[in-house]
Amino acid sequence: QRLGFDEIIFGMSKTVDQIAKITDKYKQEKLDFICTGLDDRKIDILKKRYPEFEFIPKAGIMKNISSVPPKIKGKAAIITAGTSDAKVAHETGEILNCLGVNCEKFIDIGVAGIHRIFHFKKEIAESNVLIVIAGMEGALPTVIGGIFAQPVVAVPASVGYGVSAGGYSALLSMLSSCAGGITVVNIDNGFGAAMAAFRILKSGQVEK
Amino acid sequence: QRLGFDEIIFGMSKTVDQIAKITDKYKQEKLDFICTGLDDRKIDILKKRYPEFEFIPKAGIMKNISSVPPKIKGKAAIITAGTSDAKVAHETGEILNCLGVNCEKFIDIGVAGIHRIFHFKKEIAESNVLIVIAGMEGALPTVIGGIFAQPVVAVPASVGYGVSAGGYSALLSMLSSCAGGITVVNIDNGFGAAMAAFRILKSGQVEK
Amino acid sequence: QRLGFDEIIFGMSKTVDQIAKITDKYKQEKLDFICTGLDDRKIDILKKRYPEFEFIPKAGIMKNISSVPPKIKGKAAIITAGTSDAKVAHETGEILNCLGVNCEKFIDIGVAGIHRIFHFKKEIAESNVLIVIAGMEGALPTVIGGIFAQPVVAVPASVGYGVSAGGYSALLSMLSSCAGGITVVNIDNGFGAAMAAFRILKSGQVEK
Amino acid sequence: QRLGFDEIIFGMSKTVDQIAKITDKYKQEKLDFICTGLDDRKIDILKKRYPEFEFIPKAGIMKNISSVPPKIKGKAAIITAGTSDAKVAHETGEILNCLGVNCEKFIDIGVAGIHRIFHFKKEIAESNVLIVIAGMEGALPTVIGGIFAQPVVAVPASVGYGVSAGGYSALLSMLSSCAGGITVVNIDNGFGAAMAAFRILKSGQVEK
Amino acid sequence: QRLGFDEIIFGMSKTVDQIAKITDKYKQEKLDFICTGLDDRKIDILKKRYPEFEFIPKAGIMKNISSVPPKIKGKAAIITAGTSDAKVAHETGEILNCLGVNCEKFIDIGVAGIHRIFHFKKEIAESNVLIVIAGMEGALPTVIGGIFAQPVVAVPASVGYGVSAGGYSALLSMLSSCAGGITVVNIDNGFGAAMAAFRILKSGQVEK
Amino acid sequence: QRLGFDEIIFGMSKTVDQIAKITDKYKQEKLDFICTGLDDRKIDILKKRYPEFEFIPKAGIMKNISSVPPKIKGKAAIITAGTSDAKVAHETGEILNCLGVNCEKFIDIGVAGIHRIFHFKKEIAESNVLIVIAGMEGALPTVIGGIFAQPVVAVPASVGYGVSAGGYSALLSMLSSCAGGITVVNIDNGFGAAMAAFRILKSGQVEK
Amino acid sequence: QRLGFDEIIFGMSKTVDQIAKITDKYKQEKLDFICTGLDDRKIDILKKRYPEFEFIPKAGIMKNISSVPPKIKGKAAIITAGTSDAKVAHETGEILNCLGVNCEKFIDIGVAGIHRIFHFKKEIAESNVLIVIAGMEGALPTVIGGIFAQPVVAVPASVGYGVSAGGYSALLSMLSSCAGGITVVNIDNGFGAAMAAFRILKSGQVEK
Amino acid sequence: QRLGFDEIIFGMSKTVDQIAKITDKYKQEKLDFICTGLDDRKIDILKKRYPEFEFIPKAGIMKNISSVPPKIKGKAAIITAGTSDAKVAHETGEILNCLGVNCEKFIDIGVAGIHRIFHFKKEIAESNVLIVIAGMEGALPTVIGGIFAQPVVAVPASVGYGVSAGGYSALLSMLSSCAGGITVVNIDNGFGAAMAAFRILKSGQVEK
Ligand SMILES: Nc1ncnc2c1ncn2[C@@H]1O[C@H](COP(=O)(O)O)[C@@H](O)[C@H]1O
Ligand SMILES: Nc1ncnc2c1ncn2[C@@H]1O[C@H](COP(=O)(O)O)[C@@H](O)[C@H]1O
Ligand SMILES: Nc1ncnc2c1ncn2[C@@H]1O[C@H](COP(=O)(O)O)[C@@H](O)[C@H]1O
Ligand SMILES: Nc1ncnc2c1ncn2[C@@H]1O[C@H](COP(=O)(O)O)[C@@H](O)[C@H]1O
Ligand SMILES: [Mg+2]
Ligand SMILES: [Mg+2]
Ligand SMILES: [Mg+2]
Ligand SMILES: [Mg+2]
Ligand SMILES: [Mg+2]
Ligand SMILES: [Mg+2]
Ligand SMILES: [Mg+2]
Ligand SMILES: [Mg+2]
Repeated sequence: QRLGFDEIIFGMSKTVDQIAKITDKYKQEKLDFICTGLDDRKIDILKKRYPEFEFIPKAGIMKNISSVPPKIKGKAAIITAGTSDAKVAHETGEILNCLGVNCEKFIDIGVAGIHRIFHFKKEIAESNVLIVIAGMEGALPTVIGGIFAQPVVAVPASVGYGVSAGGYSALLSMLSSCAGGITVVNIDNGFGAAMAAFRILKSGQVEK
Repeated sequence: QRLGFDEIIFGMSKTVDQIAKITDKYKQEKLDFICTGLDDRKIDILKKRYPEFEFIPKAGIMKNISSVPPKIKGKAAIITAGTSDAKVAHETGEILNCLGVNCEKFIDIGVAGIHRIFHFKKEIAESNVLIVIAGMEGALPTVIGGIFAQPVVAVPASVGYGVSAGGYSALLSMLSSCAGGITVVNIDNGFGAAMAAFRILKSGQVEK
Repeated sequence: QRLGFDEIIFGMSKTVDQIAKITDKYKQEKLDFICTGLDDRKIDILKKRYPEFEFIPKAGIMKNISSVPPKIKGKAAIITAGTSDAKVAHETGEILNCLGVNCEKFIDIGVAGIHRIFHFKKEIAESNVLIVIAGMEGALPTVIGGIFAQPVVAVPASVGYGVSAGGYSALLSMLSSCAGGITVVNIDNGFGAAMAAFRILKSGQVEK
Repeated sequence: QRLGFDEIIFGMSKTVDQIAKITDKYKQEKLDFICTGLDDRKIDILKKRYPEFEFIPKAGIMKNISSVPPKIKGKAAIITAGTSDAKVAHETGEILNCLGVNCEKFIDIGVAGIHRIFHFKKEIAESNVLIVIAGMEGALPTVIGGIFAQPVVAVPASVGYGVSAGGYSALLSMLSSCAGGITVVNIDNGFGAAMAAFRILKSGQVEK
Repeated sequence: QRLGFDEIIFGMSKTVDQIAKITDKYKQEKLDFICTGLDDRKIDILKKRYPEFEFIPKAGIMKNISSVPPKIKGKAAIITAGTSDAKVAHETGEILNCLGVNCEKFIDIGVAGIHRIFHFKKEIAESNVLIVIAGMEGALPTVIGGIFAQPVVAVPASVGYGVSAGGYSALLSMLSSCAGGITVVNIDNGFGAAMAAFRILKSGQVEK
Repeated sequence: QRLGFDEIIFGMSKTVDQIAKITDKYKQEKLDFICTGLDDRKIDILKKRYPEFEFIPKAGIMKNISSVPPKIKGKAAIITAGTSDAKVAHETGEILNCLGVNCEKFIDIGVAGIHRIFHFKKEIAESNVLIVIAGMEGALPTVIGGIFAQPVVAVPASVGYGVSAGGYSALLSMLSSCAGGITVVNIDNGFGAAMAAFRILKSGQVEK
Repeated sequence: QRLGFDEIIFGMSKTVDQIAKITDKYKQEKLDFICTGLDDRKIDILKKRYPEFEFIPKAGIMKNISSVPPKIKGKAAIITAGTSDAKVAHETGEILNCLGVNCEKFIDIGVAGIHRIFHFKKEIAESNVLIVIAGMEGALPTVIGGIFAQPVVAVPASVGYGVSAGGYSALLSMLSSCAGGITVVNIDNGFGAAMAAFRILKSGQVEK
Repeated sequence: QRLGFDEIIFGMSKTVDQIAKITDKYKQEKLDFICTGLDDRKIDILKKRYPEFEFIPKAGIMKNISSVPPKIKGKAAIITAGTSDAKVAHETGEILNCLGVNCEKFIDIGVAGIHRIFHFKKEIAESNVLIVIAGMEGALPTVIGGIFAQPVVAVPASVGYGVSAGGYSALLSMLSSCAGGITVVNIDNGFGAAMAAFRILKSGQVEK
């Protein structure tokens, strides 16, 4: 399967040393790779060690991509409820890029101000798959799923405090959604949402 | 405090014998009372034993009210997301009646079909307090709270299956709501929501 | 949107009386409808009352469909880990039928006997979307997602006892999946999985 | 709706950079705003960057308010169980100020010393809405709700350790309260409690 | 250790057959015993089989006690918040009797009507250990512990619905209590509370 | 009630500033006080500010006690399962001292090496109340309660990792104990255990 | 792998119809099989339908075994804390029989009476693997593991009420055990424990 | 019992001071010991203080072993799903060494790439006990248990985020496994897994 990378490293649960060891190996083998889930401290250390690689701090990503991935037909929309969900949205966007998927972002159009959704109705309707990121009560995918007919991939975000802390409240909401056909990925899992969109768009291209 | 009843019995966690014992005492003391949380089996037995009392099975209530409560100024709206939440809505409505509070019901106008809310916008806007009952992902109070400026009392309903079962998903959603100023009562607690609305409307009448 | 039904009733959290009231209305309005989530007791009562409707007990469904839905291009595979997940698989299949989606079933090919998956590799590879139902440890979608490139909609099943009871163990597994791009719906939510597959297949047909 | 601010930023789940970006925009647009949920570290950085704004560290707030909000009729009481709940109380008080609501604070009058409540009985009785903040076993709202007839908005506080840690014990207590008509907001949600009080007091002013 | 019984059977998690098998053995060995945790169905069957034993349905108990236990100095108070907690209170009282402990009951003096506690202040103060049973928000032991200096054994009751269901809300409240020195037993564990009171009173009698 | 202190401050959930403000007040009013729940960082700061007070870092305590509390008859044993529970044991011991209660410590005699308990059998049997502290699976109180007849106050400790982390596993074990009459306090609540022992020993002294 | 059966059916999560369908197939194919997890109702129906098969109600098992399994060297001990765990112990014993494993049962020797374990010390020491079943606080495996050096397979039992209900308290205890090297299977999983013992004993026989 | 060490210290829940105090004692008594659960900070401090001891940072271990343990017959395989589980694998390996058990490691052969397991099939089949470490959805032990007949000891790893965080998702999966006879230890409990393997291999050597 030809993607924009040969390997993907999940950097969150690894020490900098573990990441460096794997990175060195891929570098030597001249493999394209992407490393996700990096916090600012890890990025600072890795930047010094690998000045030749690309770093996108707001997405928590380090990458070394030398070739352009084949373009996938269709388009994905990334929709977020607030500005606090930005990091997940940026991760999702970066991964979609590496997968050759076009995407457009609609940030901070959450449920409390429902008019903002209608404002972008036409643009959203033109996408083939909708990735909806929301923390707190996670109601946005339900509302989006009630208005639009496309596949909806919902991503619970871990922003929030009290019962919203950690994203469980949003996760349960999304799984309970009364708008039929919404699917859900793990909390903060921008990578998984991008991969799901990629699977969907690829599936739409094969002969049927 | 002059209410439409002197005593309230919570019938759900009591055996029929325990309820009958308390009922007999109130009957003898000629006290007005209301008993909530009754299932069909308990109502059948109690109906035979107390044909002189009033029974509202769809609300799970038995009552003996001889006097009319003083009318409270203002009006409450009872709004539900689906038809499955009806029992809670009926309990709420009955208690409001006994408390002397006028109310209007808006049933099955949940979030998946957001236009239904706009359809009743004017009527809802005329109420002074909004009681919003919803199960599953419990998003309705957030949407209502984003559109209307009145006090919102949210009631999570225990309808649903999987992660929605028991009403916890709706409860967490409502507590996490990004629409500021929504307050929440216990799952299925129509009685508590009615009492909260009563407290709010009474408070609005005192001199300030 | 032209589906195989005009209305859908969720029968699990409704009393037979509530279902009958809605059914009568749809019958009178000559609307095609489908009612899901019915147990054997409810089906027995409804069958007597509505002999003219179709009942599929193993799927928990009553329906009244007079017209053939437009055929959707592509095909869905329904894959289950055990024989205990059958009811969810049957519900999914029925809904897909009503939505005009072709589907094929692969029952009881769970992870403990991994060779069974390879046995059906070619047939599964021909589907455009894979619905994977599994209870207990819910590992099947991960294995499927590691072998096949199509969209995977994972459905946790509530079969099991001890820590598997209720389907939470399977749900968490599926959300945690290390096979990128798997999406998840609520426990036992065959209806939602069918709707998600429908959204995906429809999306593949629009111009991009 | 004319409030004491045009915009509100929730600072807890945002980086300082994200907050600064939004702040700059509001500053340039000459909008009044309030930013909540700030810890000491964030306040120190923001103070250096925006010496012209007002900071209330004990409430976790930065604000830029140029105009006086219209006065709301009525009064709110802020009642806390201990001194550890102070930050939530201060946030609540600040927001009420910005909303034009008069309030009085009754700090550290928790249930273990029940006489302290009776000591302030007359003052509390003069308020139109009671905001009650309590951590640990969260019993204070029940006791308050049993003595006073006004609307009670209960705020669980996250203070405590062991089973009290995070405020869940208090939250469940408050939702379970046997004193009818108590309503609850998210753990530590002083902002939400203030908004709820505002909704209630406004509602009391409209013609009915 | 000389108690009012030689053996105790926990009947809740046993089938009637298992109980009968153990009972037969004790009967044959002429041992005094007590069997707790029996529901009405089990009591009906056992009553027919063992007409010679004593049954206390409201306490869920069957017993065969031939000798009088030695009297323990001191007195225990059993205090309950509502009438729904009666079964636990009756079980506690029966066990205390069999242990030779005097006790007095104070039923339905919960926190929502705090005056009821003060009404019995003198009688309660005369007891040497206080067993306090409460469901829902479980606030009664905290209030009792704040007023009285004796040992307090708190018993969470499983009465209630929504978040109170099962007694977890009361359990957490009691463990979180801000009234120092309250101790807690398992939900509905009247037997354990009686044994704890027995241990305390016995301990008070030994030379120190 | 004459204790070894007039006031107690819970330092864990307060900032150093909040603690200092209360301390200053007590200092000025010449009140004896004890402050618990202090970590090393807080103790360092407070030590510099109040060199005249006594600090016990291993117990997390700062105190200012000028008078000797009246001696309580009887003796408490503090028993721990491991050396990791030491901090809770030291807190308990300090509070008992301030309450005028004699106590003896039996450290690291956990269940995995059951012979260690028998080694101290005689000494433990001489105490009038047993405080048993254990983390991980929390089995020690059950074993102690099965061997000794005195009141047992069990304290779950938060030591451990995986499912033992936070002390919940130990807490549930202790509440589930099959040794009748064990009572439990909050996780890490050495203060509460000491107060409970004090209540018990005092109760043993009053006329009965 | 030659076992005492060709197929195993998990009967708990299947309807009688589903079980019968599978049974008919195995019967026709002349396969030896065992069906576990059957309650009394299901056994009654199946007994009528298959009088030729063997039923062990106290173990919840139906089986059709025509050939004797090859004998495994070594012996397993089944140890239970109470009499309420009997069903799990019987299931375990039956499965071990079908696997060709000798076993001995030690029933009701729980932790509260620790002497009972020492009474059987010699017999237990002669077994090669110890299966320990316990509900409530689940402390027995820790004590057994501290005394004996053999492999310990711990089975949490779902008996109990309050926090013990469902077996979670016992499960957490066993996983937290401070006696090194104890392993755990799912709640009530007698089948799994027997299979684990079988794997262990077989492993001991192969050349190393 | 002759092991490679006389004493084992669990370093995670102890301060460096507590560890040093115990270490000093063992050093003076000339006891062989091993200390587990050490993070980098603790290792740095201890290394300076005890330059004569051996430190294995990647396993979190400090040890002082002067004598060679007797060799145990048989071999253990340590199998991990990813590279993030390395620390647990290293701890397990170190403990096995000290116990005199031979072991071989198979790192990063998780379920998403199932072919990697088949690649090592022959080597794994030669081991007598399989220790399988996996985080996230923890499916690896099920797959391993379905392919191999040896005893499987599953170790959930705490790596991951969202619902995988802390290892609960993997733990539940492993306990729910549909591959019969898999046993489980606490999250991250490499020590316990090594001890379990040791118990199993020892048991295989005794006469039966
Ligand atoms: N449906 C209900 N939900 C919640 N609380 C209720 C309900 N009905 C009655 N109550 C409360 O229960 C109290 C009576 O409880 P009890 O003495 O147990 O009958 C009343 O004072 C009410 O506060
Ligand atoms: N089996 C099912 N599972 C989940 N949701 C369903 C199911 N059947 C119907 N629904 C949803 O429930 C809605 C109808 O709910 P109601 O108005 O309460 O009957 C439909 O619009 C569907 O979105
Ligand atoms: N302290 C707070 N607690 C809860 N919600 C808040 C708080 N402060 C602001 N908000 C809400 O958060 C919204 C702003 O979120 P954001 O766009 O992420 O800054 C506002 O509209 C408020 O509804
Ligand atoms: N009592 C039991 N507990 C756990 N698993 C079981 C039990 N009985 C059978 N099984 C497992 O369930 C599988 C059969 O499941 P099924 O195909 O649904 O009947 C068998 O291969 C066993 O691994
Ligand atoms: Mg926003
Ligand atoms: Mg509806
Ligand atoms: Mg199967
Ligand atoms: Mg205080
Ligand atoms: Mg009452
Ligand atoms: Mg130790
Ligand atoms: Mg027993
Ligand atoms: Mg890997």
